[in-house]
Amino acid sequence: MSYIQSLDNLISAFRALPGVGYKTAQRYAYSILNMKEDDVKTFASNMLEAKQKIRFCSECGNFSENEVCEHCLKNNAEVICVVAEPKDVVALEKLKNFNGAYHVLHGCINPLEHKSPNDIRIKELVARVQKHKTKEVIMATNPDVPGDTTAYYIAELLKPFGVKVTRIAQGVSMGTDLEYADEVTLNRAMELRNDL
Amino acid sequence: MSYIQSLDNLISAFRALPGVGYKTAQRYAYSILNMKEDDVKTFASNMLEAKQKIRFCSECGNFSENEVCEHCLKNNAEVICVVAEPKDVVALEKLKNFNGAYHVLHGCINPLEHKSPNDIRIKELVARVQKHKTKEVIMATNPDVPGDTTAYYIAELLKPFGVKVTRIAQGVSMGTDLEYADEVTLNRAMELRNDL
Repeated sequence: MSYIQSLDNLISAFRALPGVGYKTAQRYAYSILNMKEDDVKTFASNMLEAKQKIRFCSECGNFSENEVCEHCLKNNAEVICVVAEPKDVVALEKLKNFNGAYHVLHGCINPLEHKSPNDIRIKELVARVQKHKTKEVIMATNPDVPGDTTAYYIAELLKPFGVKVTRIAQGVSMGTDLEYADEVTLNRAMELRNDL
Repeated sequence: MSYIQSLDNLISAFRALPGVGYKTAQRYAYSILNMKEDDVKTFASNMLEAKQKIRFCSECGNFSENEVCEHCLKNNAEVICVVAEPKDVVALEKLKNFNGAYHVLHGCINPLEHKSPNDIRIKELVARVQKHKTKEVIMATNPDVPGDTTAYYIAELLKPFGVKVTRIAQGVSMGTDLEYADEVTLNRAMELRNDL
Protein backbone atom coordinates (compact mmCIF):
# COMPACT_ATOMS: atom_id res chain seq x y z
CA MET A 1 0.00 0.00 0.00
CA SER A 2 1.26 3.44 -0.89
CA TYR A 3 -0.14 6.36 1.08
CA ILE A 4 -1.66 8.10 -1.95
CA GLN A 5 -5.37 7.42 -2.11
CA SER A 6 -5.90 7.90 -5.84
CA LEU A 7 -2.94 5.64 -6.64
CA ASP A 8 -4.22 2.92 -4.30
CA ASN A 9 -7.64 3.15 -5.94
CA LEU A 10 -6.14 2.73 -9.40
CA ILE A 11 -4.05 -0.26 -8.28
CA SER A 12 -7.17 -1.91 -6.80
CA ALA A 13 -9.04 -1.29 -10.05
CA PHE A 14 -6.35 -3.05 -12.09
CA ARG A 15 -6.41 -6.01 -9.70
CA ALA A 16 -9.93 -6.77 -10.91
CA LEU A 17 -8.48 -7.86 -14.27
CA PRO A 18 -7.92 -11.62 -14.68
CA GLY A 19 -4.53 -12.90 -13.49
CA VAL A 20 -3.36 -9.51 -12.23
CA GLY A 21 -1.76 -9.50 -8.77
CA TYR A 22 -0.57 -6.56 -6.68
CA LYS A 23 2.84 -6.13 -8.34
CA THR A 24 1.44 -6.19 -11.87
CA ALA A 25 -1.38 -3.83 -10.92
CA GLN A 26 1.19 -1.46 -9.44
CA ARG A 27 3.24 -1.61 -12.64
CA TYR A 28 0.15 -0.85 -14.75
CA ALA A 29 -0.81 2.02 -12.46
CA TYR A 30 2.65 3.59 -12.74
CA SER A 31 2.49 3.29 -16.51
CA ILE A 32 -0.82 5.16 -16.47
CA LEU A 33 0.86 7.95 -14.46
CA ASN A 34 3.60 8.06 -17.10
CA MET A 35 1.18 8.40 -20.02
CA LYS A 36 0.03 11.71 -21.48
CA GLU A 37 -3.22 12.91 -19.94
CA ASP A 38 -4.98 12.75 -23.32
CA ASP A 39 -4.00 9.11 -23.74
CA VAL A 40 -5.38 8.29 -20.31
CA LYS A 41 -8.63 10.06 -21.22
CA THR A 42 -8.86 8.01 -24.40
CA PHE A 43 -8.17 4.82 -22.47
CA ALA A 44 -10.90 5.60 -19.94
CA SER A 45 -13.42 6.54 -22.60
CA ASN A 46 -12.61 3.45 -24.71
CA MET A 47 -13.38 1.38 -21.65
CA LEU A 48 -16.74 3.02 -21.00
CA GLU A 49 -17.69 3.07 -24.67
CA ALA A 50 -16.97 -0.62 -25.15
CA LYS A 51 -18.95 -1.51 -22.02
CA GLN A 52 -21.92 0.67 -23.00
CA LYS A 53 -22.08 -0.15 -26.71
CA ILE A 54 -21.37 -3.87 -26.74
CA ARG A 55 -24.12 -6.40 -26.09
CA PHE A 56 -24.81 -9.91 -27.35
CA CYS A 57 -26.13 -10.47 -30.85
CA SER A 58 -29.68 -11.83 -30.54
CA GLU A 59 -28.96 -14.38 -33.26
CA CYS A 60 -25.52 -15.85 -32.63
CA GLY A 61 -24.74 -14.64 -29.10
CA ASN A 62 -21.42 -13.07 -30.09
CA PHE A 63 -20.45 -9.56 -29.00
CA SER A 64 -22.10 -6.91 -31.14
CA GLU A 65 -22.75 -3.18 -31.17
CA ASN A 66 -26.16 -3.78 -32.74
CA GLU A 67 -29.21 -5.99 -32.07
CA VAL A 68 -27.96 -8.37 -34.78
CA CYS A 69 -24.21 -8.51 -35.45
CA GLU A 70 -22.62 -7.74 -38.81
CA HIS A 71 -21.60 -11.33 -39.16
CA CYS A 72 -25.15 -12.61 -38.92
CA LEU A 73 -26.35 -9.92 -41.36
CA LYS A 74 -23.72 -10.93 -43.92
CA ASN A 75 -23.78 -14.72 -43.69
CA ASN A 76 -26.64 -17.16 -44.00
CA ALA A 77 -27.05 -19.93 -41.45
CA GLU A 78 -26.88 -22.86 -43.88
CA VAL A 79 -23.74 -23.92 -42.04
CA ILE A 80 -23.42 -22.96 -38.36
CA CYS A 81 -20.14 -23.25 -36.49
CA VAL A 82 -20.79 -23.66 -32.75
CA VAL A 83 -18.21 -22.36 -30.26
CA ALA A 84 -18.09 -21.95 -26.48
CA GLU A 85 -16.93 -18.32 -26.14
CA PRO A 86 -16.79 -15.11 -28.21
CA LYS A 87 -12.98 -15.31 -28.23
CA ASP A 88 -13.24 -18.57 -30.17
CA VAL A 89 -15.03 -16.70 -32.96
CA VAL A 90 -12.04 -14.34 -33.15
CA ALA A 91 -9.73 -17.35 -33.51
CA LEU A 92 -11.86 -18.94 -36.26
CA GLU A 93 -12.32 -15.63 -38.07
CA LYS A 94 -8.65 -15.90 -39.05
CA LEU A 95 -9.72 -18.63 -41.48
CA LYS A 96 -10.77 -16.66 -44.51
CA ASN A 97 -12.52 -19.59 -46.21
CA PHE A 98 -15.38 -20.19 -43.76
CA ASN A 99 -18.50 -18.36 -44.88
CA GLY A 100 -21.09 -19.81 -42.56
CA ALA A 101 -22.59 -18.38 -39.39
CA TYR A 102 -21.36 -18.74 -35.82
CA HIS A 103 -23.20 -19.65 -32.67
CA VAL A 104 -21.72 -18.80 -29.27
CA LEU A 105 -22.91 -21.07 -26.45
CA HIS A 106 -21.38 -19.00 -23.62
CA GLY A 107 -19.93 -22.04 -21.89
CA CYS A 108 -20.00 -25.80 -22.16
CA ILE A 109 -21.91 -28.46 -20.27
CA ASN A 110 -19.80 -28.97 -17.16
CA PRO A 111 -21.16 -30.59 -14.01
CA LEU A 112 -18.07 -29.49 -12.05
CA GLU A 113 -19.00 -25.86 -12.69
CA HIS A 114 -22.72 -26.59 -12.31
CA LYS A 115 -23.36 -25.81 -15.99
CA SER A 116 -26.27 -27.81 -17.33
CA PRO A 117 -27.57 -27.72 -20.94
CA ASN A 118 -30.12 -25.09 -19.85
CA ASP A 119 -27.38 -22.72 -18.73
CA ILE A 120 -25.87 -22.33 -22.20
CA ARG A 121 -27.44 -21.16 -25.45
CA ILE A 122 -28.54 -24.57 -26.75
CA LYS A 123 -32.25 -23.89 -27.24
CA GLU A 124 -31.36 -20.78 -29.24
CA LEU A 125 -29.24 -23.02 -31.48
CA VAL A 126 -32.11 -25.47 -31.99
CA ALA A 127 -34.44 -22.59 -32.86
CA ARG A 128 -31.92 -21.22 -35.37
CA VAL A 129 -31.43 -24.60 -37.01
CA GLN A 130 -35.21 -24.96 -37.45
CA LYS A 131 -35.74 -21.40 -38.65
CA HIS A 132 -32.92 -21.31 -41.20
CA LYS A 133 -33.20 -24.94 -42.34
CA THR A 134 -29.52 -25.36 -41.50
CA LYS A 135 -27.76 -28.18 -43.39
CA GLU A 136 -24.66 -28.60 -41.21
CA VAL A 137 -23.70 -27.76 -37.64
CA ILE A 138 -19.93 -27.84 -37.00
CA MET A 139 -19.10 -28.35 -33.33
CA ALA A 140 -15.97 -26.31 -32.63
CA THR A 141 -15.97 -26.46 -28.84
CA ASN A 142 -12.59 -27.10 -27.22
CA PRO A 143 -11.15 -30.65 -27.43
CA ASP A 144 -11.55 -31.37 -23.70
CA VAL A 145 -14.14 -33.20 -21.61
CA PRO A 146 -16.71 -30.37 -21.35
CA GLY A 147 -16.23 -29.48 -25.04
CA ASP A 148 -16.64 -33.09 -26.19
CA THR A 149 -19.64 -33.66 -23.91
CA THR A 150 -21.36 -30.57 -25.29
CA ALA A 151 -20.63 -31.66 -28.85
CA TYR A 152 -22.12 -35.13 -28.35
CA TYR A 153 -25.12 -33.73 -26.46
CA ILE A 154 -25.95 -31.30 -29.26
CA ALA A 155 -25.41 -33.97 -31.93
CA GLU A 156 -28.00 -36.20 -30.21
CA LEU A 157 -30.40 -33.32 -29.73
CA LEU A 158 -30.28 -32.27 -33.39
CA LYS A 159 -30.77 -35.80 -34.81
CA PRO A 160 -34.57 -35.47 -35.19
CA PHE A 161 -34.12 -32.37 -37.37
CA GLY A 162 -32.12 -34.23 -40.03
CA VAL A 163 -29.20 -31.78 -39.80
CA LYS A 164 -25.67 -33.08 -40.28
CA VAL A 165 -23.57 -32.48 -37.14
CA THR A 166 -19.77 -32.60 -37.50
CA ARG A 167 -16.87 -32.11 -35.09
CA ILE A 168 -13.61 -30.32 -35.90
CA ALA A 169 -10.81 -32.87 -36.35
CA GLN A 170 -8.61 -33.78 -33.39
CA GLY A 171 -5.06 -35.05 -33.66
CA VAL A 172 -1.49 -33.77 -33.58
CA SER A 173 -1.07 -30.06 -34.38
CA MET A 174 0.69 -29.06 -37.60
CA GLY A 175 4.42 -28.63 -37.04
CA THR A 176 4.43 -30.56 -33.75
CA ASP A 177 7.45 -32.69 -32.91
CA LEU A 178 5.91 -36.05 -32.05
CA GLU A 179 8.44 -36.41 -29.26
CA TYR A 180 6.85 -33.46 -27.44
CA ALA A 181 3.19 -34.30 -28.14
CA ASP A 182 1.27 -35.36 -25.04
CA GLU A 183 -0.03 -38.90 -24.64
CA VAL A 184 -3.71 -38.02 -24.77
CA THR A 185 -3.28 -36.18 -28.07
CA LEU A 186 -1.20 -39.01 -29.56
CA ASN A 187 -3.76 -41.57 -28.43
CA ARG A 188 -6.54 -39.56 -30.06
CA ALA A 189 -4.47 -39.16 -33.23
CA MET A 190 -3.99 -42.94 -33.46
CA GLU A 191 -7.68 -43.68 -32.80
CA LEU A 192 -8.89 -41.23 -35.41
CA ARG A 193 -6.30 -42.17 -38.03
CA ASN A 194 -7.30 -41.81 -41.71
CA ASP A 195 -6.71 -43.93 -44.81
CA LEU A 196 -4.03 -42.65 -47.13
CA MET B 1 -8.81 -8.17 -34.97
CA SER B 2 -12.48 -8.51 -34.22
CA TYR B 3 -14.92 -6.56 -36.38
CA ILE B 4 -16.33 -4.53 -33.48
CA GLN B 5 -14.78 -1.08 -33.42
CA SER B 6 -15.26 -0.29 -29.74
CA LEU B 7 -13.83 -3.68 -28.74
CA ASP B 8 -10.79 -3.20 -30.98
CA ASN B 9 -10.24 0.26 -29.46
CA LEU B 10 -10.33 -1.15 -25.94
CA ILE B 11 -7.90 -3.95 -26.85
CA SER B 12 -5.49 -1.40 -28.35
CA ALA B 13 -5.76 0.71 -25.22
CA PHE B 14 -4.78 -2.22 -23.00
CA ARG B 15 -1.82 -2.99 -25.24
CA ALA B 16 -0.26 0.30 -24.12
CA LEU B 17 0.31 -1.24 -20.66
CA PRO B 18 3.80 -2.66 -20.06
CA GLY B 19 4.26 -6.31 -21.05
CA VAL B 20 0.74 -6.68 -22.44
CA GLY B 21 0.47 -8.38 -25.84
CA TYR B 22 -2.59 -8.92 -28.01
CA LYS B 23 -3.89 -12.03 -26.24
CA THR B 24 -3.62 -10.53 -22.77
CA ALA B 25 -5.19 -7.27 -23.94
CA GLN B 26 -8.07 -9.26 -25.43
CA ARG B 27 -8.52 -11.14 -22.16
CA TYR B 28 -8.59 -7.86 -20.20
CA ALA B 29 -11.06 -6.34 -22.66
CA TYR B 30 -13.42 -9.31 -22.34
CA SER B 31 -13.23 -9.05 -18.56
CA ILE B 32 -14.25 -5.38 -18.81
CA LEU B 33 -17.28 -6.43 -20.89
CA ASN B 34 -18.17 -8.94 -18.17
CA MET B 35 -18.00 -6.37 -15.35
CA LYS B 36 -20.99 -4.40 -14.09
CA GLU B 37 -21.31 -1.02 -15.80
CA ASP B 38 -20.84 0.81 -12.49
CA ASP B 39 -17.58 -1.01 -11.86
CA VAL B 40 -16.31 -0.04 -15.30
CA LYS B 41 -17.27 3.58 -14.59
CA THR B 42 -15.35 3.46 -11.32
CA PHE B 43 -12.34 1.91 -13.07
CA ALA B 44 -12.33 4.63 -15.74
CA SER B 45 -12.73 7.43 -13.22
CA ASN B 46 -10.00 6.00 -10.95
CA MET B 47 -7.70 6.09 -13.92
CA LEU B 48 -8.45 9.72 -14.78
CA GLU B 49 -8.41 10.82 -11.16
CA ALA B 50 -5.00 9.26 -10.48
CA LYS B 51 -3.56 10.81 -13.63
CA GLN B 52 -4.98 14.25 -12.88
CA LYS B 53 -4.27 14.38 -9.15
CA ILE B 54 -0.84 12.82 -8.91
CA ARG B 55 2.31 14.81 -9.57
CA PHE B 56 5.83 14.70 -8.18
CA CYS B 57 6.58 16.06 -4.70
CA SER B 58 8.77 19.14 -5.12
CA GLU B 59 10.98 17.96 -2.24
CA CYS B 60 11.59 14.24 -2.66
CA GLY B 61 10.36 13.60 -6.21
CA ASN B 62 7.99 10.81 -5.15
CA PHE B 63 4.38 10.66 -6.36
CA SER B 64 2.15 13.01 -4.42
CA GLU B 65 -1.32 14.52 -4.59
CA ASN B 66 0.04 17.79 -3.14
CA GLU B 67 2.93 20.15 -3.84
CA VAL B 68 4.86 18.53 -0.97
CA CYS B 69 4.05 14.89 -0.15
CA GLU B 70 2.80 13.69 3.23
CA HIS B 71 6.02 11.86 3.81
CA CYS B 72 8.12 15.03 3.48
CA LEU B 73 5.73 16.94 5.71
CA LYS B 74 5.97 14.26 8.45
CA ASN B 75 9.66 13.42 8.41
CA ASN B 76 12.70 15.62 8.69
CA ALA B 77 15.59 15.23 6.25
CA GLU B 78 18.30 14.48 8.83
CA VAL B 79 18.63 11.09 7.18
CA ILE B 80 17.77 10.81 3.49
CA CYS B 81 17.32 7.47 1.78
CA VAL B 82 18.02 7.80 -1.96
CA VAL B 83 16.22 5.47 -4.41
CA ALA B 84 15.93 5.28 -8.18
CA GLU B 85 12.14 5.00 -8.66
CA PRO B 86 8.91 5.73 -6.73
CA LYS B 87 8.17 1.98 -6.55
CA ASP B 88 11.34 1.57 -4.47
CA VAL B 89 9.86 3.88 -1.85
CA VAL B 90 6.83 1.57 -1.65
CA ALA B 91 9.20 -1.38 -1.05
CA LEU B 92 11.14 0.45 1.68
CA GLU B 93 7.98 1.78 3.31
CA LYS B 94 7.31 -1.78 4.45
CA LEU B 95 10.12 -1.27 6.98
CA LYS B 96 8.35 0.37 9.85
CA ASN B 97 11.55 1.47 11.63
CA PHE B 98 12.92 3.95 9.08
CA ASN B 99 11.86 7.49 9.98
CA GLY B 100 14.00 9.52 7.62
CA ALA B 101 13.09 11.16 4.34
CA TYR B 102 13.26 9.69 0.85
CA HIS B 103 14.71 11.10 -2.34
CA VAL B 104 13.66 9.70 -5.71
CA LEU B 105 16.25 10.16 -8.46
CA HIS B 106 13.98 9.02 -11.31
CA GLY B 107 16.63 6.80 -12.81
CA CYS B 108 20.29 5.98 -12.38
CA ILE B 109 23.43 7.11 -14.20
CA ASN B 110 23.50 4.76 -17.19
CA PRO B 111 25.54 5.53 -20.32
CA LEU B 112 23.78 2.71 -22.20
CA GLU B 113 20.48 4.51 -21.77
CA HIS B 114 22.12 7.94 -22.26
CA LYS B 115 21.35 8.92 -18.66
CA SER B 116 23.95 11.33 -17.35
CA PRO B 117 24.05 12.80 -13.81
CA ASN B 118 22.16 15.83 -15.14
CA ASP B 119 19.23 13.70 -16.26
CA ILE B 120 18.35 12.50 -12.77
CA ARG B 121 17.45 14.46 -9.64
CA ILE B 122 21.00 14.78 -8.22
CA LYS B 123 21.24 18.56 -7.92
CA GLU B 124 17.91 18.56 -6.06
CA LEU B 125 19.49 16.08 -3.61
CA VAL B 126 22.54 18.29 -3.10
CA ALA B 127 20.27 21.29 -2.48
CA ARG B 128 18.24 19.32 0.07
CA VAL B 129 21.36 18.12 1.90
CA GLN B 130 22.60 21.70 2.19
CA LYS B 131 19.24 23.14 3.18
CA HIS B 132 18.37 20.56 5.85
CA LYS B 133 21.94 20.02 7.14
CA THR B 134 21.45 16.31 6.48
CA LYS B 135 23.68 14.02 8.56
CA GLU B 136 23.44 10.83 6.55
CA VAL B 137 22.51 9.90 3.01
CA ILE B 138 21.69 6.19 2.53
CA MET B 139 22.14 5.08 -1.07
CA ALA B 140 19.41 2.48 -1.73
CA THR B 141 19.70 2.27 -5.50
CA ASN B 142 19.57 -1.26 -6.96
CA PRO B 143 22.65 -3.49 -6.51
CA ASP B 144 23.57 -3.48 -10.21
CA VAL B 145 26.06 -1.52 -12.32
CA PRO B 146 23.95 1.65 -12.81
CA GLY B 147 22.84 1.59 -9.16
CA ASP B 148 26.39 1.18 -7.86
CA THR B 149 27.76 3.83 -10.23
CA THR B 150 25.14 6.31 -9.08
CA ALA B 151 25.87 5.53 -5.43
CA TYR B 152 29.62 6.12 -5.83
CA TYR B 153 29.06 9.25 -7.92
CA ILE B 154 26.80 10.79 -5.28
CA ALA B 155 29.16 9.78 -2.44
CA GLU B 156 32.02 11.64 -4.17
CA LEU B 157 29.81 14.64 -4.89
CA LEU B 158 28.65 14.97 -1.30
CA LYS B 159 32.11 14.66 0.26
CA PRO B 160 32.71 18.46 0.49
CA PHE B 161 29.51 18.87 2.52
CA GLY B 162 30.74 16.63 5.34
CA VAL B 163 27.67 14.37 5.13
CA LYS B 164 28.06 10.66 5.81
CA VAL B 165 27.08 8.60 2.74
CA THR B 166 26.27 4.92 3.27
CA ARG B 167 25.19 2.11 0.97
CA ILE B 168 22.61 -0.59 1.81
CA ALA B 169 24.38 -3.90 2.51
CA GLN B 170 24.85 -6.40 -0.27
CA GLY B 171 25.22 -10.15 0.21
CA VAL B 172 23.12 -13.30 0.23
CA SER B 173 19.39 -12.79 0.86
CA MET B 174 17.86 -14.08 4.08
CA GLY B 175 16.58 -17.63 3.66
CA THR B 176 18.59 -18.27 0.49
CA ASP B 177 19.94 -21.75 -0.10
CA LEU B 178 23.63 -21.11 -0.84
CA GLU B 179 23.49 -23.80 -3.49
CA TYR B 180 21.09 -21.66 -5.54
CA ALA B 181 22.73 -18.26 -4.95
CA ASP B 182 24.35 -16.82 -8.09
CA GLU B 183 28.12 -16.41 -8.36
CA VAL B 184 28.14 -12.63 -8.42
CA THR B 185 26.12 -12.43 -5.22
CA LEU B 186 28.30 -15.05 -3.49
CA ASN B 187 31.45 -13.24 -4.58
CA ARG B 188 30.10 -9.96 -3.19
CA ALA B 189 29.07 -11.70 0.05
CA MET B 190 32.62 -13.06 0.48
CA GLU B 191 34.26 -9.71 -0.28
CA LEU B 192 32.04 -7.80 2.14
CA ARG B 193 32.21 -10.42 4.92
CA ASN B 194 31.94 -9.15 8.52
CA ASP B 195 33.74 -10.06 11.74
CA LEU B 196 31.77 -12.24 14.11
